[in-house]
Amino acid sequence: MIDRTHCEALDARDPLRSVRTRFDLPPNTVYLDGNSLGALPTRTAARMQQVIGEEWGQALIRAWNQHDWINLPQRVGGKLARLLGAATDDVIIADSTSVNIFKLLAGALALPDVAHRRVILAERGNFPSDLYIAEGINAMLNGKYTLKLVEADRIAEALDANVAAAIITQVDYCSGRLHDMARLNVLAAKAGTRIVWDLSHSAGAIPLELHNDGAELALGCGYKYLNGGPGAPAFLYLAKHLQDKFQNPLSGWFGHRAPFEFASTYLPAKGVAKLLCGTPSVLATAALECGIDTFDGVSMAQVREKSLALTDLFRELVARECDGFNLRCITPTAAEERGSQLAFQHANAYQIMQALIDRNVIGDFRQPDLLRFGFTPLYLGFADCWKAVATLREVMRSGAWQAEKYLQRNRVT
Amino acid sequence: MIDRTHCEALDARDPLRSVRTRFDLPPNTVYLDGNSLGALPTRTAARMQQVIGEEWGQALIRAWNQHDWINLPQRVGGKLARLLGAATDDVIIADSTSVNIFKLLAGALALPDVAHRRVILAERGNFPSDLYIAEGINAMLNGKYTLKLVEADRIAEALDANVAAAIITQVDYCSGRLHDMARLNVLAAKAGTRIVWDLSHSAGAIPLELHNDGAELALGCGYKYLNGGPGAPAFLYLAKHLQDKFQNPLSGWFGHRAPFEFASTYLPAKGVAKLLCGTPSVLATAALECGIDTFDGVSMAQVREKSLALTDLFRELVARECDGFNLRCITPTAAEERGSQLAFQHANAYQIMQALIDRNVIGDFRQPDLLRFGFTPLYLGFADCWKAVATLREVMRSGAWQAEKYLQRNRVT
Repeated sequence: MIDRTHCEALDARDPLRSVRTRFDLPPNTVYLDGNSLGALPTRTAARMQQVIGEEWGQALIRAWNQHDWINLPQRVGGKLARLLGAATDDVIIADSTSVNIFKLLAGALALPDVAHRRVILAERGNFPSDLYIAEGINAMLNGKYTLKLVEADRIAEALDANVAAAIITQVDYCSGRLHDMARLNVLAAKAGTRIVWDLSHSAGAIPLELHNDGAELALGCGYKYLNGGPGAPAFLYLAKHLQDKFQNPLSGWFGHRAPFEFASTYLPAKGVAKLLCGTPSVLATAALECGIDTFDGVSMAQVREKSLALTDLFRELVARECDGFNLRCITPTAAEERGSQLAFQHANAYQIMQALIDRNVIGDFRQPDLLRFGFTPLYLGFADCWKAVATLREVMRSGAWQAEKYLQRNRVT
Repeated sequence: MIDRTHCEALDARDPLRSVRTRFDLPPNTVYLDGNSLGALPTRTAARMQQVIGEEWGQALIRAWNQHDWINLPQRVGGKLARLLGAATDDVIIADSTSVNIFKLLAGALALPDVAHRRVILAERGNFPSDLYIAEGINAMLNGKYTLKLVEADRIAEALDANVAAAIITQVDYCSGRLHDMARLNVLAAKAGTRIVWDLSHSAGAIPLELHNDGAELALGCGYKYLNGGPGAPAFLYLAKHLQDKFQNPLSGWFGHRAPFEFASTYLPAKGVAKLLCGTPSVLATAALECGIDTFDGVSMAQVREKSLALTDLFRELVARECDGFNLRCITPTAAEERGSQLAFQHANAYQIMQALIDRNVIGDFRQPDLLRFGFTPLYLGFADCWKAVATLREVMRSGAWQAEKYLQRNRVT
């Protein structure tokens, strides 16, 4: 029988328990929304003061050399590479996730071997921005592509020789459903097409082996499991064998081979640096570095082991404690089919989530009827899960979610 | 006769003198590179601690509502509008300058009335990233455009009915030469084309009247005269009469009419919000707001008056004090033909600038042979100019710039 004591015992022997001190979390709060905005690392504030006061304030323009700002996107990308199963020089930090989808998808479509194909493949339930960007690319190209949307379980069969490129999110932002990356990459290679992997809900959440699993093009978010801060810069991965022939359509000066030569003609940088566009935000990239540093000394295998234990516990507790309240978990049960989140369907999901947040159990609502909970093993414990489910039970049993104040929807939830 | 005492007297009666206290500057330094990276506002560090510690750290995901992060790009854009001569709802903060050039130029090319034209016009000496992005757009569109580059003084006559769109930087990043925006906008309108104005060296440097001068599409840099910090987000301006029909090719979710509905089809937001793409960096945008706030209570007419006085003084002092050292000012003399910077040609410009920087007089070098000095009236005084020229004279007279250590070039200068 799982009870609070059992959960506390699990925390006591959790090898990642001490990692929680790497974060500043508000008191008495269970934060189950690190898949939307990661928590604040304790180091970030001091590091930002240093970047602002010493580097920018005192060194001014000289900081690009003296504090090596010029290599910041490569350096932070190199640190992240370990979590992605990638070589350090195959990853770089730049721009937003959406801008990076544009770069990789438009660039993939322009690769000579698929230039004659006319289908962009995506999953119907993909994160909307992935679909919007694909739409925007196609509009810019006068609609010459068909944007083919299929259900998650039809992606494999849809990877055929008509597909110029596919944009696939590995872990679904709603359900947490996880694609088998290695298998889909094999199928894509057979079809002669390429997958642009959106790893926004994967990076820092599950072990990744981009190189070994045959990924060629990938990007993802810096402000979720990587704890980089609100709207943090995103990351890009480009497999070595594509680095010469891939062209970045957003060919800005920081992706130039010698930006400070101020040549009038674009000559792409070698390697992943060609994926840069404009001047990177030093402040935002420095904050992201602090976020990635919270993984220091932690293996993604450890993260995954704890993530599975937390989610199994939470799901089991909800089934037992909230039985009869029509909360239906839509996240796959098998470990190999899911990321680090759980989603529960309920007709009144919005109000229930507002009531939970009011009680300092913070998850989020996703259209149309989902309670979504993200599990971040670096700062979430087993007793936290106990408390969250106890609060959910209380909200359901008391009918507290029916209060009038929860009917009004916020612009962001 | 101008001497140090005269300069100090000018400082004593400078109405903007007290504004200098709004910045943290290193001691004993004359900073003449605010046109490359603006100085640190005193408020920035504390404001960033607040955003990091209180907003992100304590409110976590709730901060999007509780601290109105969701409207940050509009709010900061609205503050900036006053400096641009624009309506508050015609300006927004987003992405980098280069990414924004892509949005506005690619979007301008797609406007139906120029869809049949095949020329993109630009100035030969335009900032390289402007040209690189135009190249990238054209490459993505299979080279269907000719990128026509002309000298600055031929732009007016080149604005003909073949031009689909032009990308023009109002103030040249090297020479400081200033285009007559109102006149070129009239010519563009007559030719039925559109100018995308790059205001990177204009915003915060010279008075702008985007609305009255008929500008339709404009963008610019946040980290130069606007003091937003290294790699700060950039701004975008879109005239009201274009806001409905303009399409942002980078159609990310933050430019959607209702991003948190998570609809699978892109529906652009009303107004300038459609120019957003991915999730904005809250940290970087908050820092930019502090930079823009340094203009509180200051009119651009005051800034311009002091800028012209500073540059006139500097030029006159160099002519007198450094006579015989082959320093040739290439910046136009007439006020209406220049921005807020001066450039001097010299065969050994690189070494001379390094020697100056070693002596805490910080300007920059630009290829192939330019010493470039930016004048930022909010934090630069007349005695600073005196000191800078005295240092330049000392470097030239002593031959100190010939030291071996100045031969080695940095990656960024």
